[in-house]
Amino acid sequence: MTTQPHPSGPDLPPHSPTQEVSRWLAAFGAALHDQDTTAATALFEPGGYWRDLVTFTWNLKTLEGREQIADMLRAQLGSVQPTDWQIEGEATEEGGVTEAFLTFETATARGRGHLRLRSGLAWILLTTMLELKGFEERKGPRRDRGAQHGVVEDRRNWLDRKTQDESELGFKRQPYVLIIGGGQGGVALGARLRRLGVPAIIVEKHARPGDSWRQRYHSLCLHDPVWYDYLPYMPFPDDWPVFSPKDKIADWLEMYTRIMELNFWGSTEAKAAVWDDVAQEWVVTVERAGQEVTLRPKQLVLATGMSGIPNRPEFPGMADFQGTQVHSSGFRGGQDWAGKTAVVVGSNNSAHDICADLWEHGADVTMVQRSSTHIATSDSLMELSLGPLYSEEAVASGITTDQADLIFASIPYRVLPDMHIPLYQEIAARDADLYSRLEKAGFLLDFGDDGSGLFMKYLRRGSGYYIDVGASELIADGKVKLRSGVNVERVNAHSVTLTDGTELPADLIVYATGYGSMNGWAARLISQDVADRVGKVWGLGSGTTKDPGPWEGELRNMWKPTQVRGLWFHGGNLHQSRHYSLYLSLQLKARMEGISTPVYGLQDVHHLT
Amino acid sequence: MTTQPHPSGPDLPPHSPTQEVSRWLAAFGAALHDQDTTAATALFEPGGYWRDLVTFTWNLKTLEGREQIADMLRAQLGSVQPTDWQIEGEATEEGGVTEAFLTFETATARGRGHLRLRSGLAWILLTTMLELKGFEERKGPRRDRGAQHGVVEDRRNWLDRKTQDESELGFKRQPYVLIIGGGQGGVALGARLRRLGVPAIIVEKHARPGDSWRQRYHSLCLHDPVWYDYLPYMPFPDDWPVFSPKDKIADWLEMYTRIMELNFWGSTEAKAAVWDDVAQEWVVTVERAGQEVTLRPKQLVLATGMSGIPNRPEFPGMADFQGTQVHSSGFRGGQDWAGKTAVVVGSNNSAHDICADLWEHGADVTMVQRSSTHIATSDSLMELSLGPLYSEEAVASGITTDQADLIFASIPYRVLPDMHIPLYQEIAARDADLYSRLEKAGFLLDFGDDGSGLFMKYLRRGSGYYIDVGASELIADGKVKLRSGVNVERVNAHSVTLTDGTELPADLIVYATGYGSMNGWAARLISQDVADRVGKVWGLGSGTTKDPGPWEGELRNMWKPTQVRGLWFHGGNLHQSRHYSLYLSLQLKARMEGISTPVYGLQDVHHLT
Repeated sequence: MTTQPHPSGPDLPPHSPTQEVSRWLAAFGAALHDQDTTAATALFEPGGYWRDLVTFTWNLKTLEGREQIADMLRAQLGSVQPTDWQIEGEATEEGGVTEAFLTFETATARGRGHLRLRSGLAWILLTTMLELKGFEERKGPRRDRGAQHGVVEDRRNWLDRKTQDESELGFKRQPYVLIIGGGQGGVALGARLRRLGVPAIIVEKHARPGDSWRQRYHSLCLHDPVWYDYLPYMPFPDDWPVFSPKDKIADWLEMYTRIMELNFWGSTEAKAAVWDDVAQEWVVTVERAGQEVTLRPKQLVLATGMSGIPNRPEFPGMADFQGTQVHSSGFRGGQDWAGKTAVVVGSNNSAHDICADLWEHGADVTMVQRSSTHIATSDSLMELSLGPLYSEEAVASGITTDQADLIFASIPYRVLPDMHIPLYQEIAARDADLYSRLEKAGFLLDFGDDGSGLFMKYLRRGSGYYIDVGASELIADGKVKLRSGVNVERVNAHSVTLTDGTELPADLIVYATGYGSMNGWAARLISQDVADRVGKVWGLGSGTTKDPGPWEGELRNMWKPTQVRGLWFHGGNLHQSRHYSLYLSLQLKARMEGISTPVYGLQDVHHLT
Repeated sequence: MTTQPHPSGPDLPPHSPTQEVSRWLAAFGAALHDQDTTAATALFEPGGYWRDLVTFTWNLKTLEGREQIADMLRAQLGSVQPTDWQIEGEATEEGGVTEAFLTFETATARGRGHLRLRSGLAWILLTTMLELKGFEERKGPRRDRGAQHGVVEDRRNWLDRKTQDESELGFKRQPYVLIIGGGQGGVALGARLRRLGVPAIIVEKHARPGDSWRQRYHSLCLHDPVWYDYLPYMPFPDDWPVFSPKDKIADWLEMYTRIMELNFWGSTEAKAAVWDDVAQEWVVTVERAGQEVTLRPKQLVLATGMSGIPNRPEFPGMADFQGTQVHSSGFRGGQDWAGKTAVVVGSNNSAHDICADLWEHGADVTMVQRSSTHIATSDSLMELSLGPLYSEEAVASGITTDQADLIFASIPYRVLPDMHIPLYQEIAARDADLYSRLEKAGFLLDFGDDGSGLFMKYLRRGSGYYIDVGASELIADGKVKLRSGVNVERVNAHSVTLTDGTELPADLIVYATGYGSMNGWAARLISQDVADRVGKVWGLGSGTTKDPGPWEGELRNMWKPTQVRGLWFHGGNLHQSRHYSLYLSLQLKARMEGISTPVYGLQDVHHLT
């Protein structure tokens, strides 16, 4: 008996990864076409995952295991009508996992996805919406001509039309979407909506885009590196610094808002909003440079950051303090505190940055660490955590920002900790010297409840860590003094008494005590009742510290339908503002155009804050 | 006898284009290394071309034929020391011409080039400078970190340093380069210099970057399409309109200036400049928002556009005209002229645009065409002329802007007309109907002295054409009236009398009579003597209308050393501002760093204006 060469020819090895993925997609496409839920589900591992961003569920949803997948398909397949499953580029295989990008269509949209196979079955499938059919962005070959060639009588030019649009929107015409908050979140979403032709206004209490960055403390730079921080549509120039200084990113936001032609209402505060059940729209009162304006948008987006309202602690004696007390969000920098004594309550990012800023300006600073904190150095995070997707090396190896975002989004939140635990073990080994010196200085360290480190803490609770850009050395060296495992007992006229009885003199107390849930903004703007109907915003329901269950599998209430009609939450870091603004903008556009958007698996509310 | 397979293996055909280029480069590199001018020259066709942008000549220079090439090599080879000639990517072959990109180095720089071989000999070689060794731009992997990690006492942040730099430059510290003119030319050069660490100030009489666009007539859009118009380092977003409206490109320039952190002095007029022979620097008096400031730059760049001072004609009776007379550069749009009668003298781009603008606003307009004009429709130009390099299709086929610029620059000006003549014959056939209707309306048409069309007219004389974006239809239809083959005989109180005796009533006369040579700016700012030493700026010396010989082979005095030390001219359209600002910035940087820059073939002066 002789061995026959494989029929696919000499250039393709038998069962190449690309062939394997193509076959899977063909089988999957056929099963979906036949509405054969059983066959489609059988193509997944029993515990396989399907993360869908808007295409199948009109929701952000991770389905875990065959049963959840089958349930979703039974509910949605009839209306979604997926077709044309194609591999995009070539598949790769490593460690028993074959992976590839893919494209597909539904009745209403074009999608892009990512697939991971193990032994021929889907371990993880990601499906995301790229664009709505018939409502594509007018870019590239579809871009506007700009000049109206041919000659027309009484021509209005670009500036005339822009000026008129800006003066009418909110007065003669109502925006379809009102975005509260003009930080990176509001601005990124505004740009997406502008491209999709959705009339929107962004209201921001500061005068200019970027002012919320400008007014933060003097030494602040972004903690994430440049490759992670692009806004949609416009990459930074290739000399943009790795860690953007706050005023530079502020200038970028200001320029971006102008170039993207966003309707940005600066110096405008949203005062109150109520839902008009007859007109089926919001009635929002805003004060714009002292003048009251009533807006009637169909959709209201709170883009006030992933943080909610500042947690201002209540300690006995605070009213009698003779120095300056401020929440970290109101701290403007150490320049006025040379030679003075400061107490910083808290031990997360802001607390560390503020301690360093005060010390740099010659203040005597003590940090009060109430509970343990996860520390990861910026260099280690950049190299080990973000590096493979967001770095100069990733750019050089041809990974576009869009691809990186898709790969990043393709890991289900359930799987992420298992991937991160070994990574943080590597960081622990690599930076062992720093950790040991911090412990010697009395600093209480942790790596998260399950050792999964910084990013999981960010997703679960949005707090509990410091990305070390230098302040940890000050603590290890004792230049910034530390009291750990204690809390504030009371505040005195010129000092702070801790729970262990120590008294710390203080000209300044900074409460770096964090923020509430974003639905606090809804309580303030709309009503406590509406805030309670929305429930807690952010967190995965992991059952770890400050992230109570049950398991949700996606960030609660972020970028997806809430229990309150027409109310949405948008925010997060620059990466999230960039990537998830796409899915939120498509959900809003579909609603504006009257496309059917049957939401599968609308989340329940389990916690009010 | 059996045929042996070619030793290079089955994947490369014998003598592939890539092999052919690699062999040529190897032979060329070896000859240059051995300083064997004869051998190097013999690798060119007898009439072959070598265009060098700065690398060999510290000049912009096209050498025509073996003799000129040999002469240049004898003069420069000893100092240039070229090495490492490598093909970049793969070569292609079409119609007997093999072409490829290439890279090389010299003693001081890294270069990139392009080669066209015919039958194994160089028909055309282009060599350009990319960067100076040791003075590379801090981009990509060399970008700044931004955040100063680690903690430093009394830290100054990005904004502190920027504010201090801006307040000191021009007062405590002098700029190395002073750029007069803050249009696209000045701004693009400013960005290049900023990247290279060359202290520079841009002075601009208008308040904001872009104002010179904003203040032009209402309907103006760029006549070149978007792919041709990028500024360095920052592409437009992919929805930027094909033809930028004037106010939109103005906003882009303003934003670009800010994001690139240029020292842009708006509302500043340069009043006078003299060369200080002792200090070896310019002494330039500027008035900045009413305050006189003296600047002492080593290098002075006039970036006041490719046009010089407006040609204001002298017709008898002009002083007695009772209506409004204005040069086209001062025309602000047709909005005030509804129901009024206007005469536009001239028949080039501005004249056509202004006629259309006036007609759109309801004026009665007559164009006075004094001599024949070349008309090419924007659509035909886009498809046939620019399309292969600058279009959505070019982008889709993977041609980057840098590559397009290099290919565009690789055609010697001597060769260009032969390439363009058939292209304009195609345009003549394609738009035959329009041309015939224009002729019926009495319009005098031409395609240039040798039929080479629009771009050659632009290079030779910077005038004599209209890129049709609609006004030609108005002329063909008689909506804009036409008097052709006549000039203005005299201006009366309320009318214009033409040389054929006709009298045209006029509330408004617009003189679209063009501009002088850019050295007129040197006369005004420095002295007539210095302007005369520089001589005529622009034009190739083709011996065609308005481009007197002798043949120069490059644009006179543009982006290269002039006969006046430390005085440079920069300008042109957005493409030229982008591409040639690179070579000008490298010449300036080399001088600042004290790198030897022996100029080969400094141009002689043959014409004063």
